[in-house]
Amino acid sequence: MLNLILDLDTGVDDSIALSYAALNPEVNLLGVTGTFGNVTTDMGARNALAVLAMMGRSDVPVFEGAYHSLTTESFSPHDVSVRIHGRNGTGNVVFPAAERSVEKEAASDFLIRMMRQNEDMVIVTTGPSTNLASALMKAPELSSWKGRVVIMGGALTVRGNVSHFAEANISQDPEAAKIVFESGLDVTMVGLDVTMRSRLRKSDAQAWRATGTEAGKAFAGMLEHYILNTIGGDDTYVHDPSAVVCALHPEYFSLLPLALTVELDGADRGRTVGDESRILEKAPKTRAAVNVDSGKVEKELKIIGEYFTRIS
Amino acid sequence: MLNLILDLDTGVDDSIALSYAALNPEVNLLGVTGTFGNVTTDMGARNALAVLAMMGRSDVPVFEGAYHSLTTESFSPHDVSVRIHGRNGTGNVVFPAAERSVEKEAASDFLIRMMRQNEDMVIVTTGPSTNLASALMKAPELSSWKGRVVIMGGALTVRGNVSHFAEANISQDPEAAKIVFESGLDVTMVGLDVTMRSRLRKSDAQAWRATGTEAGKAFAGMLEHYILNTIGGDDTYVHDPSAVVCALHPEYFSLLPLALTVELDGADRGRTVGDESRILEKAPKTRAAVNVDSGKVEKELKIIGEYFTRIS
Repeated sequence: MLNLILDLDTGVDDSIALSYAALNPEVNLLGVTGTFGNVTTDMGARNALAVLAMMGRSDVPVFEGAYHSLTTESFSPHDVSVRIHGRNGTGNVVFPAAERSVEKEAASDFLIRMMRQNEDMVIVTTGPSTNLASALMKAPELSSWKGRVVIMGGALTVRGNVSHFAEANISQDPEAAKIVFESGLDVTMVGLDVTMRSRLRKSDAQAWRATGTEAGKAFAGMLEHYILNTIGGDDTYVHDPSAVVCALHPEYFSLLPLALTVELDGADRGRTVGDESRILEKAPKTRAAVNVDSGKVEKELKIIGEYFTRIS
Repeated sequence: MLNLILDLDTGVDDSIALSYAALNPEVNLLGVTGTFGNVTTDMGARNALAVLAMMGRSDVPVFEGAYHSLTTESFSPHDVSVRIHGRNGTGNVVFPAAERSVEKEAASDFLIRMMRQNEDMVIVTTGPSTNLASALMKAPELSSWKGRVVIMGGALTVRGNVSHFAEANISQDPEAAKIVFESGLDVTMVGLDVTMRSRLRKSDAQAWRATGTEAGKAFAGMLEHYILNTIGGDDTYVHDPSAVVCALHPEYFSLLPLALTVELDGADRGRTVGDESRILEKAPKTRAAVNVDSGKVEKELKIIGEYFTRIS
């Protein structure tokens, strides 16, 4: 059983990642912390609560975190995020509002409390690393925490998706990502290198819709919107869900031990790259996923469709 | 027995790579083609002839190739090359001039002739890819050649060494590198990702000198100059020799299958990177070395010291 916290900017692929974790019998989902990115923080938290309710997991608490990056004072989603994730973050499909509300505790305080209680735990972040960086700034002693962090973000062996150099999550808060990568925590980067190698397909959406369930139909519409607005063909990338799969099944991935850093200045601001000055480190605390058995990732995500079938 | 052609811009690490190949009983060294880069093409060819003579391998022919890149009309070594490799390319150590001269045949014609004769062959390039690109432009049907190419050059998971993006060999002729990477040939990139992980040490130079041989003393002085002018500590990178070791022992390296390309424009001109538009290719013809058992590479190079001991 994997003790898990998800730190999400709940748009479309976050919703799928969250569903996979919430429905997976191998996961003990301790909570969801919300951040900005695909959507604003409050919208993302509402989406997370709605997704959890649809998955029959209203027992899982949701915490609101940072509203903007460490170096900015406000945040509005980029036009491209609104296009890809829809105006509401769920592909313009209206999910039933959850009855449960967000918790009063701040996301970073929840992270600190859980990290202090539990060293056998994984934190998966699928947005900017701001909440985790804030937790480490508030409680620096947590840099010796023995749990694991898995970050969906970055691009090491391929170009970025917001510039030739930067991937969206890292680019939203490069300072935060650098803090996390260089914190001394055990960090696995699941970047575009692998998330673009796996796919969700129109046929998945069709199967979800065919269950006739409200949840299945809603998720089908959401995925179809996302497919149309990312690649625009028959399939799309598996960004955020890949990070959750990697938390559970690192053996599906080729993991390159590498002392990772983040560029802060110049044209390559937001680039994730190996730090050549630390290349001889025998056991770097960070590693990057550089290849994946995509068939295994795609098979894992069948859990979601199986749930829609079960409740039909 | 590995049929091998080395395409060298013979400076210091090329000399060590050439010695390793020339002395290795597993290698059938068919010839050396010379290019520009660390030194001018004619200086590099003279150095290759001198190194071969010192290793007792004057039977190996040397061919002169391109004098400049595909997009320039002349070439002078960069100041940093002159510093690292010395004014003569061999760390300012004067090697005895070889009796043998360069062949009359041009390097690209020799490459074409050998590729047509032999599909069971590896071409290792340790400088700009200009000669091989020229051969492919002259004889486009060779894109279906079944042999292997191993390129020392590029940087995928770490920064470049002439800019944040570009490694020196690729940066000297990005167009040529792009032609080779996208040619359809079987290409393995051995870049800074791995060459910086292995080391040659002052202790190696001391052992070579201690053999009392002229060759051992000359190579010791050359390596010491290189150590001083690269890292400046007790050791240095193993750039070019790593590519020859990889040609013989790919199993020492972690090879990532990846459709590689080269950026031609903008700040990242000369960057080697995965082409995301081809990321789903099931069996890309190119791959990048991303990790290495450096102890095994370093042990391989002991062949050179063993030769100096044998002739002492």
